[in-house]
Amino acid sequence: MIKVGIIGATGYAGNELVRILMGHKDAEIVWLGSRSYVDKPYSSVYQNMFRIIDDVCRDDNISELADNADVIFTATPQGYLAGILTEDILSRAKVIDLSADYRIKDLPTYEKWYGITHGSPGFIPEAVYGLCEINRDKVKNARLVANPGCYPTCSFLSVYPLVKEGIIDPDTIIIDAKSGTSGAGRGAKTDNLFCEVNESIKAYGVATHRHTPEIEEQIGYAAGKKVTISFTPHLVPMNRGILVTAYANMLRKAGYDEIKSIYDKYYDNEFFVRVLDMDVCPQTKWVEGSNFVDVNFKVDERTGRVIMMGALDNVVKGAAGQAVQNMNIMFGLPESEGLSAAPMFP
Amino acid sequence: MIKVGIIGATGYAGNELVRILMGHKDAEIVWLGSRSYVDKPYSSVYQNMFRIIDDVCRDDNISELADNADVIFTATPQGYLAGILTEDILSRAKVIDLSADYRIKDLPTYEKWYGITHGSPGFIPEAVYGLCEINRDKVKNARLVANPGCYPTCSFLSVYPLVKEGIIDPDTIIIDAKSGTSGAGRGAKTDNLFCEVNESIKAYGVATHRHTPEIEEQIGYAAGKKVTISFTPHLVPMNRGILVTAYANMLRKAGYDEIKSIYDKYYDNEFFVRVLDMDVCPQTKWVEGSNFVDVNFKVDERTGRVIMMGALDNVVKGAAGQAVQNMNIMFGLPESEGLSAAPMFP
Amino acid sequence: MIKVGIIGATGYAGNELVRILMGHKDAEIVWLGSRSYVDKPYSSVYQNMFRIIDDVCRDDNISELADNADVIFTATPQGYLAGILTEDILSRAKVIDLSADYRIKDLPTYEKWYGITHGSPGFIPEAVYGLCEINRDKVKNARLVANPGCYPTCSFLSVYPLVKEGIIDPDTIIIDAKSGTSGAGRGAKTDNLFCEVNESIKAYGVATHRHTPEIEEQIGYAAGKKVTISFTPHLVPMNRGILVTAYANMLRKAGYDEIKSIYDKYYDNEFFVRVLDMDVCPQTKWVEGSNFVDVNFKVDERTGRVIMMGALDNVVKGAAGQAVQNMNIMFGLPESEGLSAAPMFP
Amino acid sequence: MIKVGIIGATGYAGNELVRILMGHKDAEIVWLGSRSYVDKPYSSVYQNMFRIIDDVCRDDNISELADNADVIFTATPQGYLAGILTEDILSRAKVIDLSADYRIKDLPTYEKWYGITHGSPGFIPEAVYGLCEINRDKVKNARLVANPGCYPTCSFLSVYPLVKEGIIDPDTIIIDAKSGTSGAGRGAKTDNLFCEVNESIKAYGVATHRHTPEIEEQIGYAAGKKVTISFTPHLVPMNRGILVTAYANMLRKAGYDEIKSIYDKYYDNEFFVRVLDMDVCPQTKWVEGSNFVDVNFKVDERTGRVIMMGALDNVVKGAAGQAVQNMNIMFGLPESEGLSAAPMFP
Repeated sequence: MIKVGIIGATGYAGNELVRILMGHKDAEIVWLGSRSYVDKPYSSVYQNMFRIIDDVCRDDNISELADNADVIFTATPQGYLAGILTEDILSRAKVIDLSADYRIKDLPTYEKWYGITHGSPGFIPEAVYGLCEINRDKVKNARLVANPGCYPTCSFLSVYPLVKEGIIDPDTIIIDAKSGTSGAGRGAKTDNLFCEVNESIKAYGVATHRHTPEIEEQIGYAAGKKVTISFTPHLVPMNRGILVTAYANMLRKAGYDEIKSIYDKYYDNEFFVRVLDMDVCPQTKWVEGSNFVDVNFKVDERTGRVIMMGALDNVVKGAAGQAVQNMNIMFGLPESEGLSAAPMFP
Repeated sequence: MIKVGIIGATGYAGNELVRILMGHKDAEIVWLGSRSYVDKPYSSVYQNMFRIIDDVCRDDNISELADNADVIFTATPQGYLAGILTEDILSRAKVIDLSADYRIKDLPTYEKWYGITHGSPGFIPEAVYGLCEINRDKVKNARLVANPGCYPTCSFLSVYPLVKEGIIDPDTIIIDAKSGTSGAGRGAKTDNLFCEVNESIKAYGVATHRHTPEIEEQIGYAAGKKVTISFTPHLVPMNRGILVTAYANMLRKAGYDEIKSIYDKYYDNEFFVRVLDMDVCPQTKWVEGSNFVDVNFKVDERTGRVIMMGALDNVVKGAAGQAVQNMNIMFGLPESEGLSAAPMFP
Repeated sequence: MIKVGIIGATGYAGNELVRILMGHKDAEIVWLGSRSYVDKPYSSVYQNMFRIIDDVCRDDNISELADNADVIFTATPQGYLAGILTEDILSRAKVIDLSADYRIKDLPTYEKWYGITHGSPGFIPEAVYGLCEINRDKVKNARLVANPGCYPTCSFLSVYPLVKEGIIDPDTIIIDAKSGTSGAGRGAKTDNLFCEVNESIKAYGVATHRHTPEIEEQIGYAAGKKVTISFTPHLVPMNRGILVTAYANMLRKAGYDEIKSIYDKYYDNEFFVRVLDMDVCPQTKWVEGSNFVDVNFKVDERTGRVIMMGALDNVVKGAAGQAVQNMNIMFGLPESEGLSAAPMFP
Repeated sequence: MIKVGIIGATGYAGNELVRILMGHKDAEIVWLGSRSYVDKPYSSVYQNMFRIIDDVCRDDNISELADNADVIFTATPQGYLAGILTEDILSRAKVIDLSADYRIKDLPTYEKWYGITHGSPGFIPEAVYGLCEINRDKVKNARLVANPGCYPTCSFLSVYPLVKEGIIDPDTIIIDAKSGTSGAGRGAKTDNLFCEVNESIKAYGVATHRHTPEIEEQIGYAAGKKVTISFTPHLVPMNRGILVTAYANMLRKAGYDEIKSIYDKYYDNEFFVRVLDMDVCPQTKWVEGSNFVDVNFKVDERTGRVIMMGALDNVVKGAAGQAVQNMNIMFGLPESEGLSAAPMFP
């Protein structure tokens, strides 16, 4: 039984970690960390867990936690983990970080986009970017996994095969992403009130969103060169889900069958990535509550572009689900353990 | 391994049966019946099941199905099962009916409220009303289970302890119920279009809804006499969930502690019924995707009434989940097998 | 041209006042008060008013305001107006208060339910309860109007004719009300975040909501005696709208036609109250953005009860619209001036 | 008083025409055409109009209508008007067509994308594309106005100034558009049921949507050459609103101030087009119920692209509102007559 500790257990991603782990047969939660709710019953913060979880929330003490847990999930604000992580902790427990602290290898890029000084840059080289389908082998032996962002996971998996195979020009990639509101967190902000979000849609962070360099870095690895892309997130009046619509110029002509075979080459054996049938567009609802990513594409001969689409549940494959998938890989378990639930509809 | 056949697998309740059974370790689906989609891949009707289910939909043939399945779920329109059920079928397979055909014991009441002639009234006495927490023992040996309606399950479990213990006058019960839109089914009707339901709430079927006699019959059993209640359903702009707010006059003074102890007496050992803490009002979101029913109450000394509240997921405990719970009881399995997932939030 | 000042112009009711008054041909806004946004352009707080309103928000100074305005609307927290109102102000400007400060005539009742000491009880007798359809004549000459609460307006207009005519027993009235989330205000609270409200419904303030005594007092006037009722509000995932479903025992038998004629007697000449056709249930969407109240009823012979229903837009007839209707009456204008827009659908 | 006839008065656009015209002081509706509801009270189809409109729906008879009306609005399926329009009708009444029949000047393009043979191509040259801000002068004297599509109006107004001034390369334009569900119409389709749309987002008509050539033709006029663009619409779980996010490569460097001055040059005097302040992203909610289009842009030096954004209410400026604006121009009225209502929030 893997002993799991969570720091930041009362955010939406933290609660989803708890939900998923309650159904995981080889893991048990030993520490529900939440600085804001110390000593309060977890189920009073999340009533869905009433009579399911009896524990109270605990203060953040990563050192004590490292003694009690085999793996620590940190679902914490940017900079938090970087400020407290030590070799000693990593020697005692594996760490899966759901924040962005160790996702970007290029330190100046990180510090520029996030506007903070990194507290422990020495661990950046060691950290493995936990996009399971891409870095599975590296994750296996990692002590520190940087769990990918929700937008980057969806964006990258949607375009990856065509970048890797040189079908599209990576510098022409434009990613127009749409997210449910859980991505904005549980903090009490006027902008996220029901009446402000409901019946509306808007772009935000245009040309400045911090997931941009994360996506660029990963696409750059696939392309074998530095790339620059456009990324625009939008807020959608729904709880869960991210939809990515990505555009790129094709470097050469390629028809549906060829492109389909490329997607299949990369994803046919991936349980969690589903390449949909021709002309079926991904919908966030079809993956809700699950760890699946649905992808598809459309070749547009008129414009010489290919439109790539991807959908996932931002709280699952975009956060807690992928974190558990990484844990499974790190501990030699079947990747889908605890994650095999079918999407819920409607 | 229990072999399961489903007739009506492409309605919302049918799809939820499929979702739940995919996570049930002792059951396998052998027949996905759907008259409307014969020979079409099930996953083309419900893309959430893409790459999870490869089977195609089959025509309705309950006799052939009875040869292949240990248990048949019928999630079909009123009157359908009553028109085709035979002793021969029941001798070969157990039947759990999600329609109302066998829920009401009093035939004239059924025929009056439903406006149809019952096709096989001879089976009504044998049918067990599958409200698991109440009729568990009878379900065990049943061949034919009438799975309760969504509103009746939520309504009855909310008021049951106080009726049973004689705390409230059953003839003063007023049930004001609110349901998500999945209860209206997947049929293409203008009234259920997004733009008609969204940003609105309305009552419907006022004083005429067909779940009324079903609720009255069950309350009558608890009260030990025939009762008449008021029941008003409302349509709410959300996918899932039923909330019941029930009012009744108290027959004698009783404070919070006494009433609480009565609820606890009936539900403390019930895994799926959660009596919430004082002053915590049930919310449908806290049970979404799960088989839980959350109940609570408020004593109003000013009016001499008690207000009873209950929340469940109409597609799970209100339909498919309770059906699987009944199956588990009928086949001697742990009641929560396949149903232990925690509610999903947000 | 009536000069209008608003204190509390940046709440949802305040913004709706502004929207309505922009379309009012005999009124102009001279003061947009908002303590939280002093000196900020109003249109930066409410972008819907971009290029429509150029003014900035001003601090609260009711004395200076009284010099500049013919009428002052206060859309402020409970107790605020009571704490600053003086004879001097009332001698210089009329006041329409959207808070509850002067709604309840019985001081101990007010202080008990609101938990505060009233700051200027001396004005309570003078204040006119501005339910226009009932108190039109008194409003005409009022200096101080207590604009009714959203729930009380909808509740009272739904039951009024049958109480007044002695058809129902007022002490058996049970009001189950459902409100959109704008009623909860624009304050940044976790409970009102999109993800907390969306896809859920709950009761709140059960047996303790402060609109209860306000409703009781008004029903009491109609009944000619003190009455006690049950009132339960619910939060619905939609922006606007209140639906009331009210239940009461009939004191004598009465059929559809008689009850209909009673409703018509009271409302046939009321522009803003629409008695719907037989069996058409009020829906909040059908009155959205308008000052209409849709009401209807169902006689239930089985139970001897009548179910009364009402729907309105809580921000319009439930707040700002009725406030403007009161202003129109006070200044001798047609009651529907600025309020004649048809409801918006969908 | 302008006499107005509407064919197709019971679709969502038709109902919005009715709502807007009820508040128009120089127009009266003389004919509510709806083939599906002949002889039924209009207010039984749209209860928001209860006691506001007493008329019944009439069958479609454009010839009789031309005798009774000064202007005919056709909110009808593609091909309908083209199949019945004659010189005789146009000689008797002006026609504003909300369908696409006369929007595209190039006949083969129209017939290819719409898959139908045009019934009266002879009128195409005469028809004026009613994008008021661009073709105001031509609309003045038009007999036949092709009211623009919802997506084209929002798309074109968002990119127009920068195309016209040669700042961006029109062949690099990628338009990612998001629409509320009212755009899908009131027809009873499973895909548009509440439970199918709610809590989900998807692209549709990828690389094949019929508004593409309409947008391309208009951008082509501005660019002075034939252009090819990418256009992808998405379905969003909200009733009203279209948001456009458009991307294009800049032909030369230009900073915020220069681009802002270009937008201002074209829109400063346009009442209905609001260029927002720096870094304020358009939101559909801020224009709901109004005829406004909010636009803004972001220069992205990193990629050499400019991101252009626009938001409108698809039922108003995207359909009925613009139609009335065209009517106002054709009849010499102030353009904003009947259209000056401020957006409704929340």
